[in-house]
Amino acid sequence: MDRLVIGTRRYSSWSLRGWLAVRCAGLDVPDEVIALRGAGQTSEIHAISPNALVPYLEHRGAKIWESLAICEYCAEIAPSLWPSERVARAAARSIASEMHAGFRALRQALPMNLGREGRVLAVMPDEAQRDIETIDRLWSVTRGQFGASGPYLFGADFTNADIMFAPVVSRFTSYGIVLSPVADAYRTAVLDHPLMQEWQRLAALEPVEWQLDRYESIA
Amino acid sequence: MDRLVIGTRRYSSWSLRGWLAVRCAGLDVPDEVIALRGAGQTSEIHAISPNALVPYLEHRGAKIWESLAICEYCAEIAPSLWPSERVARAAARSIASEMHAGFRALRQALPMNLGREGRVLAVMPDEAQRDIETIDRLWSVTRGQFGASGPYLFGADFTNADIMFAPVVSRFTSYGIVLSPVADAYRTAVLDHPLMQEWQRLAALEPVEWQLDRYESIA
Repeated sequence: MDRLVIGTRRYSSWSLRGWLAVRCAGLDVPDEVIALRGAGQTSEIHAISPNALVPYLEHRGAKIWESLAICEYCAEIAPSLWPSERVARAAARSIASEMHAGFRALRQALPMNLGREGRVLAVMPDEAQRDIETIDRLWSVTRGQFGASGPYLFGADFTNADIMFAPVVSRFTSYGIVLSPVADAYRTAVLDHPLMQEWQRLAALEPVEWQLDRYESIA
Repeated sequence: MDRLVIGTRRYSSWSLRGWLAVRCAGLDVPDEVIALRGAGQTSEIHAISPNALVPYLEHRGAKIWESLAICEYCAEIAPSLWPSERVARAAARSIASEMHAGFRALRQALPMNLGREGRVLAVMPDEAQRDIETIDRLWSVTRGQFGASGPYLFGADFTNADIMFAPVVSRFTSYGIVLSPVADAYRTAVLDHPLMQEWQRLAALEPVEWQLDRYESIA
C-alpha cells in the first residue's frame, strides 16, 4: 500500500523534508501521521518503519526509510529536485548531505516547533551559535555562486538542498535568529513557498494533544 | 586541479568511503593524503575543504565535500554503484543514508584502526552493541532479499551501500565482533575486495608517525 508515514507536523523536522520531496515530485501517496512522543520512538513507528524513524515512504513496492534517500528517490521522478548542471548538482548534494549528518548542536538546541514564533533562547549554546554562522555562510555563498536565476539556493527551482534546510528555516524563524541580509532573504523565500504554507496549515489542524508534549519547556 | 583529499588511511573511515567510490568509478584523480590529528580538524584541512572534513573531491570543476555526495557523484559516472532495479536502488539508498547519519555509538566506541586485528574491547557499551546487532540484521535481511546474484549486499555489484559499510567491516574485524553466519560471510567478501586490499597496502606505506597518534589507548 502506497503511503508516506510522518510524525506530528509541528515538531517532526525530518518528516517535513520527506513530505516536501514527495509533494514536489507529485507522488500520489496519502500521508499517514503518527503522534511523536518522547524521543519519537513509539511502538507504532517500530511496527512500520525498518529503522523506527519517520518519514517512511512506500511507493510502488519501494520502501524508503531515510529522508535523504526519499529526496533522491523523488529526484529520479522529478529531476528538477537537483540542479541540472553537473557542478551545481555536486554542490547541492554536498550541502544536502552536510545537513543530513551534521549541525547536531543546532538541531538539539533549537528543535523545530511551528507553534513558536520569534522567541529567542535564554542561552544560546556556543556550538549551536557556530552552526548558525556556518549555515548563514553556506546559504550566502551558495546563493552568490549558484542562485542568480531565482530566490532559492540554486536559483529558480526549489531543490532537495532547499528541502533539507527547510526545517532550519523554520527554526531560525521560531527562535528569532538574526541572519545576514542574503541569508535572511533566503529564509523568507522558503517560508513563503506554497508547500511550506500548506505544511503550516495542516500542522494547525492536528489534534491539540499532539501539540503540547514536546519541547515546550525549552526557554 | 583535480584531486581527492583524504586523511590518514589507517584511521579515516570517511576517506575510505570516498576513495572506494572514486576508484570504483575510475576517476582519474590523484590522492592527496593529510595526516589526521586530534579530532581530524587540522588547519591544513580548513584551508582545503569547505566544511573542514575529508574526503574532499575536486573533479572537472565540481567540488564535493561529503562522502555520500561523492558516492552519488561517482554513481552518475558509474551507474553500477547503485542497483539498476528501482526497488533495490531505493533500499540501497536508504541503507547508505542510514549509515551516513547513524550508528554513532558504534563509530565512537569502535573507531576504525587498520592496525588493530581481532582484539576485543574490554567493555562494549550497550548502545554500540545495539548498533552491531542492528547492522548484522540489516546486512542479513538485505543479502536475503537482494543479494542472490553475488556476495555483496545487492548481489554481484559492489555498490555505494557496500562502500558506506566498508569501514564497519574493517571495525568488526579489528574488534573481533562475532556476527551471524550471513553477516560474517558478507564481512569476508568485502574484506577480500581488491580495492579494500589496496587501501590496506597503501595504509601500511604511510609514515610511521601518522600511525600512532590516535585511538591507540582504546582498550
